[in-house]
Amino acid sequence: MKSMLDNVRSPVDVKALDAAALPELAEELRREIVAGVSKTGGHLASSLGAVELAIGLARVFEPERDRILWDVGHQTYAWKLLTGRRDGFGTLRKFGGLSGFCCPEESDCDAFVSGHAGSALAAAEGMAAARDLRGSAEHVVAVVGDASLSNGESLEALNNCSQLKGKVILVLNDNEMSISKNVGSFARVLGKMISGVRYNRVKAAAERMGHKLRLTFLRGAYHRLESTLKSIWLGNAFFESFGLRYIGPVDGHDMKAVENALAVARDDKRSVVVHVVTVKGRGFAPAERNPTAWHGVGPFAIPEHGSPEKPAPSHGWSEAFGEALAAHARSDEKVCALTAAMCDGTGLAAFAREFPDRFFDGGICEEYLVTFAAGLAKAGMKPVVAIYSTFLQRAVDQVMHDVCLLNLPVVFAVDRAGCVGADGRTHHGMFDVAMLRCLPNMTICQPCDEDDMKEMLSLALKKGGPWAMRYPRGKAQDAAVPRVAVEYGKARAVSGEGAKVQLWALGDQVAKAVKVAAALKERGVEAGVVDARFVKPFDAELLARHRAAGAFVASLENGSVMGGFGEAIGADMKFGWPDEFAGHGSAAELERAARFDVDSVAQAISGRIKGA
Amino acid sequence: MKSMLDNVRSPVDVKALDAAALPELAEELRREIVAGVSKTGGHLASSLGAVELAIGLARVFEPERDRILWDVGHQTYAWKLLTGRRDGFGTLRKFGGLSGFCCPEESDCDAFVSGHAGSALAAAEGMAAARDLRGSAEHVVAVVGDASLSNGESLEALNNCSQLKGKVILVLNDNEMSISKNVGSFARVLGKMISGVRYNRVKAAAERMGHKLRLTFLRGAYHRLESTLKSIWLGNAFFESFGLRYIGPVDGHDMKAVENALAVARDDKRSVVVHVVTVKGRGFAPAERNPTAWHGVGPFAIPEHGSPEKPAPSHGWSEAFGEALAAHARSDEKVCALTAAMCDGTGLAAFAREFPDRFFDGGICEEYLVTFAAGLAKAGMKPVVAIYSTFLQRAVDQVMHDVCLLNLPVVFAVDRAGCVGADGRTHHGMFDVAMLRCLPNMTICQPCDEDDMKEMLSLALKKGGPWAMRYPRGKAQDAAVPRVAVEYGKARAVSGEGAKVQLWALGDQVAKAVKVAAALKERGVEAGVVDARFVKPFDAELLARHRAAGAFVASLENGSVMGGFGEAIGADMKFGWPDEFAGHGSAAELERAARFDVDSVAQAISGRIKGA
Repeated sequence: MKSMLDNVRSPVDVKALDAAALPELAEELRREIVAGVSKTGGHLASSLGAVELAIGLARVFEPERDRILWDVGHQTYAWKLLTGRRDGFGTLRKFGGLSGFCCPEESDCDAFVSGHAGSALAAAEGMAAARDLRGSAEHVVAVVGDASLSNGESLEALNNCSQLKGKVILVLNDNEMSISKNVGSFARVLGKMISGVRYNRVKAAAERMGHKLRLTFLRGAYHRLESTLKSIWLGNAFFESFGLRYIGPVDGHDMKAVENALAVARDDKRSVVVHVVTVKGRGFAPAERNPTAWHGVGPFAIPEHGSPEKPAPSHGWSEAFGEALAAHARSDEKVCALTAAMCDGTGLAAFAREFPDRFFDGGICEEYLVTFAAGLAKAGMKPVVAIYSTFLQRAVDQVMHDVCLLNLPVVFAVDRAGCVGADGRTHHGMFDVAMLRCLPNMTICQPCDEDDMKEMLSLALKKGGPWAMRYPRGKAQDAAVPRVAVEYGKARAVSGEGAKVQLWALGDQVAKAVKVAAALKERGVEAGVVDARFVKPFDAELLARHRAAGAFVASLENGSVMGGFGEAIGADMKFGWPDEFAGHGSAAELERAARFDVDSVAQAISGRIKGA
Repeated sequence: MKSMLDNVRSPVDVKALDAAALPELAEELRREIVAGVSKTGGHLASSLGAVELAIGLARVFEPERDRILWDVGHQTYAWKLLTGRRDGFGTLRKFGGLSGFCCPEESDCDAFVSGHAGSALAAAEGMAAARDLRGSAEHVVAVVGDASLSNGESLEALNNCSQLKGKVILVLNDNEMSISKNVGSFARVLGKMISGVRYNRVKAAAERMGHKLRLTFLRGAYHRLESTLKSIWLGNAFFESFGLRYIGPVDGHDMKAVENALAVARDDKRSVVVHVVTVKGRGFAPAERNPTAWHGVGPFAIPEHGSPEKPAPSHGWSEAFGEALAAHARSDEKVCALTAAMCDGTGLAAFAREFPDRFFDGGICEEYLVTFAAGLAKAGMKPVVAIYSTFLQRAVDQVMHDVCLLNLPVVFAVDRAGCVGADGRTHHGMFDVAMLRCLPNMTICQPCDEDDMKEMLSLALKKGGPWAMRYPRGKAQDAAVPRVAVEYGKARAVSGEGAKVQLWALGDQVAKAVKVAAALKERGVEAGVVDARFVKPFDAELLARHRAAGAFVASLENGSVMGGFGEAIGADMKFGWPDEFAGHGSAAELERAARFDVDSVAQAISGRIKGA
């Protein structure tokens, strides 16, 4: 049977469809998304919630001319399918395939890059300002989730909306939760808007009426009516405070309501917020029941009968960290755990259940979270901030100004440090070493296995001062290293201590360095392996011994070479991620492309040694 | 005549004073502040506006036990005078003297470090959470200016207030302007609150009544009355949206009103915002008339008759940049200028007057500003973001995610790069090279004189792509370099091309390197000088020639050695700012302390060369 989607090659085709056919199109999109993600893995729940929104945007706007910016962008699979990328959908998040986020290089319908939360409205305002300077007439629409809107950059952009001479449209995609759960007053305000049931009923009638009004003066009257209704039933004028006309709440799965609301927003002269209420995982029962578990998933099987099993969470670095931290919290009541809306991702779920009073989720507010941790520390607690490397970038200033200046005992558990694979360029944790290493008072270390992680965490909590322990996505590989207790600022010689080539490897690269040493041996080059353990302070004594013995020092690190560990120790050859943005795919594919796999490294070193 | 201040050695003495004596105390404080700043220079207008607030806080709270956090902290001179630091006030901002900002190392009455805007409320919430975990009972008070409160981190903290189990007090010090002028909806909302004159009158009466009520149930009734009054007169419940009780607006120069409002806030069980309206420069006519000019000033003369002259703005790097940019804007209508509330400081005032449509002031919202610039660039404009190095730290993630990923043509004019002198540790621009150098697609350069600055700006606008041009505080010194046109990624040999020691100097360090070379010559060491011009990409060809000739390479940069330019080129000796936070004082004093002055550098190099 030919599907409707077969006829949709671009947004123009979506416009041409009869409104009556749209619910079926939505169902097809959902089937396609579930089937696709079951094979490639990806962000399932959010994308299922934004299907009608994607259809509505494609019909009401001209996506190739108008500028549609999706914040974060992991909710855009339907958008991708509707904007000419259906053929590539099987390559989603694969090496050389479609990105899992918005990607202007992929399609003109992606107006801006996405991945980190909170940037869409700010970028949209910049685009709107450029439009007005140029005198063109395209619409600029930012689609922002409720959790993203509570991010500081979104709030800055919201606050600056009224300064814009021209118009911008903010679509608030409100599913009442971020990846885990939403926090803060903003969520409460929205909840109040949504729960005003009686209001909604009256509002819906008014909305329908308003949409039918073609005469401007009557539309004005409708707006006044609407605004009066709102004050009466909601008593809240949050968005009006920011100078935006408020439309909503709209049922985000009522195709007609969504399209109407977007059309009203498009035709208004002023800046507008359209508040659309959606359900994460919509139309896929397991994800509707547990959207957190089905937020980002690996491939999964769809059984012929019954529900698909949710992929079992694997035990990796994050979980090992969470367990180690909880053990400390049991014996030391000063230990606190903090996350920026990534309770599950950072392995803190068990901690949060066991120590709810000492667990703090700041929402997608990394800046706030780091300074909050500094406040906890200044007042005598031992906060541990678990955060992805790429998102810690948001709070580098706070690490410097609020933590390092006062030399406060805040431990940063820098998760997803290095290559993250399928999430790609916006999510790799390449820059934490370069950005943190320059900060006075900061200690930076990286364990090569879970035993070291436990010891490093103990040492960090005992010693005090700002401390970053980084570790990558996934599981620890067994580096088969000799057991040596972790000592502050000291490396561990793993093998080949007297060799003329010394491979200084950081964390997860130790296991790789052992393989590189083996590959070098095959090429006739003897190489020792050092588990560096500490980036700052690094083991200057061991390095001096190697230098004194005339050793050739090569560094291996899962992070940017530029500004990284290799530069810190002045390595003769530095292996890591080169000075370009790594794409998406498996870690192995990306390493090969960057010539950072075992063979490439061994070849480069032996070439240099033999050439010299 | 003995002054009242002579009897004030600590907040306890402030409490002991009769209320009738306070206006006189305020006058004395103002005289002391003006007299002190006329000698040391400093932040005058803000501190004059917060005199009654400081007295009120000292009287209502126990500053050594309660935690008072001043956001930014440049408004705290009265606070310093009242909390045991009067004797040191003559050393304000001088080497080894009092800091110009809050400094816990200086006094227990400074609960947290300050300097950057937006952190106080977040830190206060952390301290309040720690208090509640420990079960102690101190009050935690964040004093935040209206401009600071519109910063993203403040807004994140505001949004998270309602999550706190315990209580926090936010004092909003509202002077209706940031350093230049305030922007955004938030300012408008506050303005509306303040301008509700009729409301204020009724409110004041209610406030007085409320303060007198000792019976809880009556106080409850008063609160309901207050809240009803507010909705009727203001129709706005901005802070109530965030779950805070709102008290205000209070005349911040009415001593009694301030004290009453703070006492009500102290005694309330809930989190509270006290909205205090103050006048920048209060009591010092020239600063009241022109608070922007008198925001931060150098020493000035107080004439016996008539008004003090406002110190003439000097022509330095910032003004040279502003003029060069305006010249481009005249011939290229795509060129835009952006600032985060630092129009004057970054030398953009003339640009703003000449091209108001292409000038954007985002307020103290660096994150928003950088992404907004990215939006402008994606839509075809050529934005130039003028920003202090230390504040660019706030937006490092946006530089990476929104600018560098798409390789967008955004130019960063990184002002105050390196040592800033009297403002000290929170304001030095030490880390921009380390933080930006790791980002793919980024160009980093530094001019050694105004001619080079013009050429570099032209090249940046012509070439496109992310580009950071850094330059220090103050004026260019004449490096007496031979004129060579700027070429992308190329250095300029200044002198001594064949010498066995080569000094690779960056920007303002070129003039110093020339002096170092002369000092080395006196010590019998011949040294060449290179004006590096580019940090990224640096001139690898010239470096390779020096290496091939066996030269000893030393680097000089006005920035952190850790992660800096010297590491990038793998210099044999790296001179710059060491891995500790530099304090405040003159640049010369700080350089000497860091052994980064001409003599120390020459001595270190000749020691190494002769020792080798």
